[in-house]
Amino acid sequence: MNRSTLIQAIQEKNSMLCVGLDTDWNLLPEHLKQRPNGLVEFNRAIIEATQAHCVAYKVNTAFYEALGARGWDALEETCELIPETHIKIADAKRADIGNTSAQYARAFFERLQFDAITVAPYMGEDSLRPFLDYPNKWTIVLGLTSNPGAADFELCKMENGAPLYERVLSTVSQWGSTENLMFVTGATRPEQLSEIRKIVPDHFLLVPGVGAQGGDLQGVIKHGKNQDGGLLINASRSIIYASSSEDFAEKAGMEAMLLKESMQSIISELN
Amino acid sequence: MNRSTLIQAIQEKNSMLCVGLDTDWNLLPEHLKQRPNGLVEFNRAIIEATQAHCVAYKVNTAFYEALGARGWDALEETCELIPETHIKIADAKRADIGNTSAQYARAFFERLQFDAITVAPYMGEDSLRPFLDYPNKWTIVLGLTSNPGAADFELCKMENGAPLYERVLSTVSQWGSTENLMFVTGATRPEQLSEIRKIVPDHFLLVPGVGAQGGDLQGVIKHGKNQDGGLLINASRSIIYASSSEDFAEKAGMEAMLLKESMQSIISELN
Repeated sequence: MNRSTLIQAIQEKNSMLCVGLDTDWNLLPEHLKQRPNGLVEFNRAIIEATQAHCVAYKVNTAFYEALGARGWDALEETCELIPETHIKIADAKRADIGNTSAQYARAFFERLQFDAITVAPYMGEDSLRPFLDYPNKWTIVLGLTSNPGAADFELCKMENGAPLYERVLSTVSQWGSTENLMFVTGATRPEQLSEIRKIVPDHFLLVPGVGAQGGDLQGVIKHGKNQDGGLLINASRSIIYASSSEDFAEKAGMEAMLLKESMQSIISELN
Repeated sequence: MNRSTLIQAIQEKNSMLCVGLDTDWNLLPEHLKQRPNGLVEFNRAIIEATQAHCVAYKVNTAFYEALGARGWDALEETCELIPETHIKIADAKRADIGNTSAQYARAFFERLQFDAITVAPYMGEDSLRPFLDYPNKWTIVLGLTSNPGAADFELCKMENGAPLYERVLSTVSQWGSTENLMFVTGATRPEQLSEIRKIVPDHFLLVPGVGAQGGDLQGVIKHGKNQDGGLLINASRSIIYASSSEDFAEKAGMEAMLLKESMQSIISELN
């Protein structure tokens, strides 16, 4: 999915919501745990219930890898369930030397047909180049994350006094364009999104941490939104585990709708 | 495998060699490409031919993921083929927020029964904690890598004038011990291993980049070895693709033996 199609989807649906399919086998409703393909059935129901309210799905690969080859099959099946109208993000945090990153790019962009993948910047340009070189695909680079560990390195000051994550944003933004690069920027520090927007005013930002991680939705939109929307705001656990009973999909749909409506009312107030 | 067993293996075998199973389906000898489980057969033959010369195997997960669920099965089967006498390393470069890293740890330490996994430090302590908290397992953190992109962030100077990778080594070494932490330190800059040894004198270092990446074996040992050995020196492509014909395993075994003997003669000269 290219940038103009994504912007159009955001405008038509009036939503910047990304639903995170961090589907943990242990947290499935009991009736689905009994079923051989319960995890995929869960994802199918979640996707059907939420797709009217979101523009993106982010699939967290760790939860599938924990199940081995069976989990990898579930990952493939889940990808196929996500409609073409929604951007499909592999939240995989990969990156390695060039020939290895090329294999990861092949796995996620060709075999699994994701539109986008999250990657870690530590190893530098040649570790991201194989992802960036795929036409019509997105590379989403970790900038400032929403976890406490962000203080350990991301926020450490460099020689020029600016934190490492700002260096990552300014350097990496030269390796691609607003058509193939996004950044992960955590929502637990929304006021820092204003600083981030000075460095990458036009790029899409993937903002996790709304919902279970406790991010401030109003702050995120106020400080992070640009003229194209420019945000994909992710919620995972608060939506997909809104209920642990048979009504899980219905409750997930309601939670997604409420989040979308919160976004809409915040945007209206800001305008 | 714990530290004393690893040190004993290195001493008994007089080798610090790690063989990298970066097994690319496209580079298999033709006769194995025709076989349904050719990739695992290749790995089995490589392991049998090289195990007398090495103390570790490093499995690069990207090459298996590129094959989907079939590749994940091959990864599981390959793990089972690696003898208990050798340390099994998943070269996976993972790390994410805590609940996600816990899933990765489960995938690699429990399901696949690896002894060790490589991880990226960017997201800080809570992203590594689930790996570090596993008893009798190793977390191998990216320090200084051997690729050109190391210059983009790893070598950038921090506020105190030291490069980022030194900050990573000094900070991360406080999160674990020499019993559960190693560092990846690239071999294309062997003189920097002397600087690294000032920060982490006792930790094991996993050194890729010998062989196809062109690292300097003598420099690595001279600058990186400590009283316990303290090095796992990896070679992947130069060993496993030493021949592309039916004699691939024999040639791999010879190449591994030559590398081991080179290490032994360098160590003798240094003593």
